[in-house]
Amino acid sequence: MIRFNNDYNHGAHPAIIKALAETNDTGYAGYGTDTWCQKAEDVIRQLCQKEELHVHFFPGATQANFIVCASILSPIDSVVCADTGHINAHECASVESTGHKILTIPNHDGKIDAGELESFVASYYEQGEPEYLTIPRMVYISQATELGTIYSLEELKAISAVCRKYGMMLFVDGARLGYAMSAANADFSLADLASLCDVFYIGGTKCGALMGEAVVICNPALENHFKHYMKQNGAVLAKGWLLGLQFYVLLKDGLYMDITRKADEYAIELKKAFKAHGIPLHVDSPTNQQFVLLTEEQMKKLAPSYVFEDEGKADETHHVVRFCTSWSTTKEDIDALKADIKKL
Amino acid sequence: MIRFNNDYNHGAHPAIIKALAETNDTGYAGYGTDTWCQKAEDVIRQLCQKEELHVHFFPGATQANFIVCASILSPIDSVVCADTGHINAHECASVESTGHKILTIPNHDGKIDAGELESFVASYYEQGEPEYLTIPRMVYISQATELGTIYSLEELKAISAVCRKYGMMLFVDGARLGYAMSAANADFSLADLASLCDVFYIGGTKCGALMGEAVVICNPALENHFKHYMKQNGAVLAKGWLLGLQFYVLLKDGLYMDITRKADEYAIELKKAFKAHGIPLHVDSPTNQQFVLLTEEQMKKLAPSYVFEDEGKADETHHVVRFCTSWSTTKEDIDALKADIKKL
Amino acid sequence: MIRFNNDYNHGAHPAIIKALAETNDTGYAGYGTDTWCQKAEDVIRQLCQKEELHVHFFPGATQANFIVCASILSPIDSVVCADTGHINAHECASVESTGHKILTIPNHDGKIDAGELESFVASYYEQGEPEYLTIPRMVYISQATELGTIYSLEELKAISAVCRKYGMMLFVDGARLGYAMSAANADFSLADLASLCDVFYIGGTKCGALMGEAVVICNPALENHFKHYMKQNGAVLAKGWLLGLQFYVLLKDGLYMDITRKADEYAIELKKAFKAHGIPLHVDSPTNQQFVLLTEEQMKKLAPSYVFEDEGKADETHHVVRFCTSWSTTKEDIDALKADIKKL
Amino acid sequence: MIRFNNDYNHGAHPAIIKALAETNDTGYAGYGTDTWCQKAEDVIRQLCQKEELHVHFFPGATQANFIVCASILSPIDSVVCADTGHINAHECASVESTGHKILTIPNHDGKIDAGELESFVASYYEQGEPEYLTIPRMVYISQATELGTIYSLEELKAISAVCRKYGMMLFVDGARLGYAMSAANADFSLADLASLCDVFYIGGTKCGALMGEAVVICNPALENHFKHYMKQNGAVLAKGWLLGLQFYVLLKDGLYMDITRKADEYAIELKKAFKAHGIPLHVDSPTNQQFVLLTEEQMKKLAPSYVFEDEGKADETHHVVRFCTSWSTTKEDIDALKADIKKL
Repeated sequence: MIRFNNDYNHGAHPAIIKALAETNDTGYAGYGTDTWCQKAEDVIRQLCQKEELHVHFFPGATQANFIVCASILSPIDSVVCADTGHINAHECASVESTGHKILTIPNHDGKIDAGELESFVASYYEQGEPEYLTIPRMVYISQATELGTIYSLEELKAISAVCRKYGMMLFVDGARLGYAMSAANADFSLADLASLCDVFYIGGTKCGALMGEAVVICNPALENHFKHYMKQNGAVLAKGWLLGLQFYVLLKDGLYMDITRKADEYAIELKKAFKAHGIPLHVDSPTNQQFVLLTEEQMKKLAPSYVFEDEGKADETHHVVRFCTSWSTTKEDIDALKADIKKL
Repeated sequence: MIRFNNDYNHGAHPAIIKALAETNDTGYAGYGTDTWCQKAEDVIRQLCQKEELHVHFFPGATQANFIVCASILSPIDSVVCADTGHINAHECASVESTGHKILTIPNHDGKIDAGELESFVASYYEQGEPEYLTIPRMVYISQATELGTIYSLEELKAISAVCRKYGMMLFVDGARLGYAMSAANADFSLADLASLCDVFYIGGTKCGALMGEAVVICNPALENHFKHYMKQNGAVLAKGWLLGLQFYVLLKDGLYMDITRKADEYAIELKKAFKAHGIPLHVDSPTNQQFVLLTEEQMKKLAPSYVFEDEGKADETHHVVRFCTSWSTTKEDIDALKADIKKL
Repeated sequence: MIRFNNDYNHGAHPAIIKALAETNDTGYAGYGTDTWCQKAEDVIRQLCQKEELHVHFFPGATQANFIVCASILSPIDSVVCADTGHINAHECASVESTGHKILTIPNHDGKIDAGELESFVASYYEQGEPEYLTIPRMVYISQATELGTIYSLEELKAISAVCRKYGMMLFVDGARLGYAMSAANADFSLADLASLCDVFYIGGTKCGALMGEAVVICNPALENHFKHYMKQNGAVLAKGWLLGLQFYVLLKDGLYMDITRKADEYAIELKKAFKAHGIPLHVDSPTNQQFVLLTEEQMKKLAPSYVFEDEGKADETHHVVRFCTSWSTTKEDIDALKADIKKL
Repeated sequence: MIRFNNDYNHGAHPAIIKALAETNDTGYAGYGTDTWCQKAEDVIRQLCQKEELHVHFFPGATQANFIVCASILSPIDSVVCADTGHINAHECASVESTGHKILTIPNHDGKIDAGELESFVASYYEQGEPEYLTIPRMVYISQATELGTIYSLEELKAISAVCRKYGMMLFVDGARLGYAMSAANADFSLADLASLCDVFYIGGTKCGALMGEAVVICNPALENHFKHYMKQNGAVLAKGWLLGLQFYVLLKDGLYMDITRKADEYAIELKKAFKAHGIPLHVDSPTNQQFVLLTEEQMKKLAPSYVFEDEGKADETHHVVRFCTSWSTTKEDIDALKADIKKL
């Protein structure tokens, strides 16, 4: 049984397990005030080419998402995102549970359009900021998106410009940031992100770590008492160095990109195999998540050997099905599935 | 430098690191629906001698505390606890941030008294449940308490009886439950807890795991959609088996009790050494946390070799100082500190 | 200047002012525990032909809306409503500010369709109540709707049946209930509402009172500590008899229906005048709110003599414009506007 | 039966009823954007001798209290007040329901002490603003207090100075501000309040209006989008001019002070009568609320003719009992009670 259902079905890259074992007998300061968190923050500063940013290590992505929102938004503020945005569609209203409305605009293959965003936001101001409507204060996008697509540098710049025009914060969910950066058509860097957005995170859980997300605060105003928000919402791990250590291992020498590049390449092999066999794509993704349209019969043929994720019906005869690769995907896994795709 | 400042300054017991390494190449279902979580739940059911309970694995204790409260309390309900209760004094108002008032009653060496609890609660009902006061719906206690003391079985029964009389839920914070169960004067069992309270947890982070708390829901009514609350607040770990596996290793053959018993014994050795040298105790604790009164001069003498926690001034000349033991404390650590206590 | 912009631009029906003046020298118990609130509740019970219901008097409709939601929904529950629903579009996220997500479905002239509602809700259960989605626990509709339209008895029964099938509460916002009941095509009664929904309210502010909404709790389970929710959110007026008295005056002898029937008739006169003059309707409303499409030139012609509400652009050349009638609208007001419509 | 149980058991001062009747046929803009609210704001500016302040009219005091808190505090911020503070003891956790912790310090006859306040706040900063504690961001006091006592100008200045030293906002609950200003020993003015605190309110409900509180925002930074908070929490009355009109009537020519001065004088007559008869005072109040200690037998003697408020047992033989005067208290009421006090 080979798991393609998601990118978090195995433990961590062996280098991480090794590092955890080697440091297990050492004592550290708690709550993220240790030396590994400091080292990882330093590496991230270098990669972002920005000295004044701050990094906080979270156990998970849902925490990162709702706590960042809670730390920035006042009760009368709302966050704008794609209808497919993870905070809107997959996190059990964690943002609303902290008191904030999510305003959605239509997605285009998982992405929002800067022009549509501007029209949407402008309408609030053109009405004179009426008190019966919330203030759109933040824009949330995912890079890569929930459909595996990525924003180009130009698109990021356009969204960032709209945000700055209207005094909105730009928050980039990078749970799969590695896969986005490693995509063949990626033209943005961490330094670009650090200059274009106010806060983003570098995903660990889905990119080779046991768990963890590195939240990077680029806008110094957002750093103010940020750790209080983390503590209040249970995101300050007692043994916080476990997170810092993992990111240090992943980022110090490029392992993070090695992992995600390989996974992207494997995923593209699968995409090509599906296309070659006439299986329609649900979306043309350049990253480790591939969404194709399969008939129920095709799904049944693959089910005995592979785990994949059924995303629901696309039409009368097809389901949208997701295949993911990750650090643990092997050439053998890919070759096996490619061979079986040909038999569909 | 030997760390006695807390019980979470080293990684995990080696058996856990070994298990993580051995299972790293295996694929698992996500979000706690895997085989290890199931096995750990089964072991806990056996230890609690109760078939119908449910177990949920949380990354951390603050999450466990506020999410359990959020899942039980309506906005008009409050939780009653000692003024020293962790949720009142150490978690940045995480409970209030979900909308609930904490009503405090005085602690006695960290514990609440069942009689005082009853008087406090009864006054609400004797006033006719006025709408300008919240409904005391839950009682929160810690076992062991924040001061290292433990409730006897009789005390637990008395508190439980008050709760049932007034329709309140009893929630036991067991972040240090192992140390309480291993205390020389402990006379309660997991089965007692499972029958006396509505929900409790078995602490992992402070008792030898990398991280994790096993929340045990004893009252079936509280199980309803509980995982939605976890998801909404970011407590469902993607690679949830990492938590189940750790608890399985700790609980299946008694390792949990071995770890905490040894730590308690070491702590009692320290307590005896302090007393023998005439150092006054702040509280007489039977568990791994020892609180003593040191002068600033005494603190300065110990500071070069040991890390300990200054809890603030007790009087003009003394500070309350905490010394903790844990899975990583060695006989050499204890002997060294005992020798230096004699020199104070 | 004649005000047609809304139905709350004048004080109260003279009978209410008279009653307030006459009772001003009498002392009453506070917080709604007085004799007038009791009398008004009794009248409402009779009108609803249901003995076991409870009535609570609120100062305003936004309070009624979000407090009813807060009293029924758990943090993991959501409320389903039309995208045009008042709680979604006009109350500054008051429901989200209490922690709950609003799930919207498309409106049809302001109304939701029972079949579409069922499909929407069923998809949650067909997915197995996944923890990453909230539980649709309540349905909110407005009668009359925000566009002036009304649900037929058959439509109400169909929506109620879907709610009961899936264990959802049905909440009817009756801020303009009088206008709905007085509509020429209305075929439902207060008794129908009381049997079909779990909670609804009889609007006062927009139907002739100084202020106030009478929230009717039909489902006894929802009465439990309801007043605590009101108090917590500031909706228990100290001089609560002011609200009970107004509803008693409005409801005891049919004044409420007299007021709203006359206003509806006047509004229909306006609708006919617009149609006769070739002004297109935005929606065909049978109640006191009329929405028509005017050019900017037409708006300019009316602006010197009338206040009306510009709802924004409908297309390149038209705006949606609202004209409302109320207790204070006179035959002279209507005749004047009718004459001026002919000159557009 | 003469009502001394509270100061909100009758309607409004006749001048208000008259004004409501006289303006009933006039149309106004909604939501507090009318001419009466503007006029009332102008009068308050003059009385406060401060041009740049803003005034918002609320239907009730609980709303004013929790909405002001919600508008100022971030989730990680807390409000400091006396344990007897209305927000802590009488409003069903309305502040906590918006997510904020209340930190209490001991009251002294209902008041807090500036020195104790400073010690309390300083301890947070001396600990280094730890993330497990909330940030004390606001101080809440009541003038007059819940026990009828008042702060002197010197006391207000001292509290204000502590607030400014630590960057805290000072919020004065003035539900009974008139009675405080009219007290014989009062030495502060509205202008003093406006310069010493960040926000306060002038109570209407308990000082002669039908309902309403005038929230005065003295610190311009707090005005930002304040009305959004009001709308979100249901405090923007549709017919908002009803509130502005009442305050205009009360404040334009000194009626507010006339009402409260008379009520205070009557209350002092009662206090003297109780003292003269040997009835002990619970607290020595200079305002319209008098708290005395009565035996159950004494209470029974007064109960047939008077309504008063039993505040609970003071000791084995006495209850604390409150007697209030208000705009509707007459010389006859006072003379009758004085005569009956002599018979106790």
